[in-house]
Amino acid sequence: MTGQRGDDPIKPKVGLSGRKIIYDEDGKPCRSCNSLLDFQLATGKISMPSPGKPPAVKVAAPAKQNTPVGYPKVDPPDVEELGRSSWTLLHSIAAKYPQKPNDTQKGEMKQFMTIFSHVYPCWWCAKDFEKFIRENSPKVDSREELGKWMCEAHNSVNKKLGKKAFDCNLWEKRWRDGWD
Amino acid sequence: MTGQRGDDPIKPKVGLSGRKIIYDEDGKPCRSCNSLLDFQLATGKISMPSPGKPPAVKVAAPAKQNTPVGYPKVDPPDVEELGRSSWTLLHSIAAKYPQKPNDTQKGEMKQFMTIFSHVYPCWWCAKDFEKFIRENSPKVDSREELGKWMCEAHNSVNKKLGKKAFDCNLWEKRWRDGWD
Repeated sequence: MTGQRGDDPIKPKVGLSGRKIIYDEDGKPCRSCNSLLDFQLATGKISMPSPGKPPAVKVAAPAKQNTPVGYPKVDPPDVEELGRSSWTLLHSIAAKYPQKPNDTQKGEMKQFMTIFSHVYPCWWCAKDFEKFIRENSPKVDSREELGKWMCEAHNSVNKKLGKKAFDCNLWEKRWRDGWD
Repeated sequence: MTGQRGDDPIKPKVGLSGRKIIYDEDGKPCRSCNSLLDFQLATGKISMPSPGKPPAVKVAAPAKQNTPVGYPKVDPPDVEELGRSSWTLLHSIAAKYPQKPNDTQKGEMKQFMTIFSHVYPCWWCAKDFEKFIRENSPKVDSREELGKWMCEAHNSVNKKLGKKAFDCNLWEKRWRDGWD
């Protein structure tokens, strides 16, 4: 034992990143809690390199930003980067919402979406979203409902931007389960 | 006039993307409401290509995703993509927060951050963030306060991940004004 794996050989404790691998309460590796490589290691898609051999997969890991002096001068996001980031967060929130939420969780989710529509940095997007919420109250009775509602909200924006609509029957593949 | 510019030559109405250019209430181009190229056009960083000439800058625009059949099978985000996306949203929210918020806006911002710490999809990140909020109540009395508070929250995560801290005196350059 190297300390890199737990007692259960299918459940490594430490990933290729050197960080602890995080599991969900149901014992499954948590996709949104780990780096992709660590998640792949925990699900058995890739294996830990043999002792003495260089970890071949490590080359696929993103390069560490290393700026000894000053900061890389990254500018604030434009509307597209902000949109992509926000949908990434919102769909992921829906994907982890309880299947049977309690009243507090339902109330908080409604409030979150409402406040989101007030504070979203692109004000015209925010107004559109506020209107959508007024006409289509967030469905918060289950994960399935919320995930589809979010997908429909996103499609209403896609439509306005002339983008292709996403098939909302596939939302869990895109935002929860993956495609394999 | 081609209909691509408004009466004010410094304020074009339509961008290189073909979409309307959005201005803030103070008349300045809205960075987070427009694509980067449209924002650059509106701020005079680049100019509209001459009629008859191919729009040379268009090559810099992101390629349109064009999948005639099916969807590109993009997997759900891992913890790093989710983190990047979420910080992008949160810092941008702080950057557009009023300089003198009213009581409703202050209350909503506190609520938003609290609910965020309950629904964030990576549960261990969420618990850490909830603890941070319990020990460092969100400062919502002005944009300046909120922006610095958010920067300190981000730095507390950077520290845990062994990443370099960001100088919070520079937060407006990174998330509001840009570096030029």
